[in-house]
Amino acid sequence: MSHFIKTTRNRVKRLPERAAYDHETIYKILDEALICHVGIAQDNQPFVIPTIHVRRGDTLLLHGATTSRLLQHIQAGNPICVTVTLIDGLVVARGVFHNSMNYRSVVLFGVGHILDDPDAKNRALHALTERLMPGRWDDARLPSKKELKATTIIELPIESATAKIRAGGPKDDAEDYEREWWAGVIPLEQKFLAPQSDPKLRSGIPVPSYVKNFKR
Amino acid sequence: MSHFIKTTRNRVKRLPERAAYDHETIYKILDEALICHVGIAQDNQPFVIPTIHVRRGDTLLLHGATTSRLLQHIQAGNPICVTVTLIDGLVVARGVFHNSMNYRSVVLFGVGHILDDPDAKNRALHALTERLMPGRWDDARLPSKKELKATTIIELPIESATAKIRAGGPKDDAEDYEREWWAGVIPLEQKFLAPQSDPKLRSGIPVPSYVKNFKR
Repeated sequence: MSHFIKTTRNRVKRLPERAAYDHETIYKILDEALICHVGIAQDNQPFVIPTIHVRRGDTLLLHGATTSRLLQHIQAGNPICVTVTLIDGLVVARGVFHNSMNYRSVVLFGVGHILDDPDAKNRALHALTERLMPGRWDDARLPSKKELKATTIIELPIESATAKIRAGGPKDDAEDYEREWWAGVIPLEQKFLAPQSDPKLRSGIPVPSYVKNFKR
Repeated sequence: MSHFIKTTRNRVKRLPERAAYDHETIYKILDEALICHVGIAQDNQPFVIPTIHVRRGDTLLLHGATTSRLLQHIQAGNPICVTVTLIDGLVVARGVFHNSMNYRSVVLFGVGHILDDPDAKNRALHALTERLMPGRWDDARLPSKKELKATTIIELPIESATAKIRAGGPKDDAEDYEREWWAGVIPLEQKFLAPQSDPKLRSGIPVPSYVKNFKR
């Protein structure tokens, strides 16, 4: 099993037993997350922006408008941090101090570069589209030359990363287990509801099966 | 209605029609989000860390271990950025280029300081606990002196903030509305499931009503 090397940048100091550095664990969380939060620093001022992502091997692809300041900053070669977080539940402990959440998060680091070649950009948009909704690329209008030109694709080789995971029930102080307080977990799930057709949909177009059966 | 002033830091350039600067819109999103992503910059290297938060008036409270590098960096007076994002659905457009998500996000900026006074810390922990689960503070073991000491509370006056909101159906190119592709929205919701009692729960303790009826 391959791992990211632990360095000052990615090593988890606080609760290190929750940390994982192996590609498999990290990539699974990255792939499950609908969106990521991208952090950049400009003159010591951080900015954190939500966006969608797709992983392709050991790289992450991000996209946005050519005019995006965020993407311009990234393509200039500045280091970035990308974080994804999945919340799995509330952990209700007997002691308020031990309240927690069950979560799976990844923090990764790298320096991005722009994909210029139109074919490479098109493949990246294919990956971004199909990751969110498999089957859609072949049943939609594909990007025009003008649209491709208006889109910036950033490829970010993942230099360093860590996953942090908390699962299971509350961990309380020994003496508190005998007391009268309830304790447990309230699981949380992200649920997609039934698709809503565009009110402007041309009549006679059924909901396609890849939409009807959509879930993650 | 009071607003945050638009500056270079918080002004939305891309799709400005999605932006809002009024306190009411921004605070509602902040209060609904279970967690936030905190960004800091150290020597031009950004770090983005998920954590829980609670808003109290025009300030945000964050907490963590006294040993936390993140909190130490914040309490040293460095500027930080806090972002929360709620995803409301996938927007499936006829043109791949117009695919989107419905979301509500807030990006805010400020400089934090530490709360030292034990009573102030205790009130902050009360706010953090009750925000997630109203009713719990009065039915749990409250923080001990030692636990309070091990906890750092950061108070962050919100200097500047923006909300960005996308809602509604796809927006396609005029000529694509006549074509054969389905288009619409797949709504997404965060759903809490039935509470799971701790397997180590002392027998005879029922699930309290504030847990049974828990939802956000």
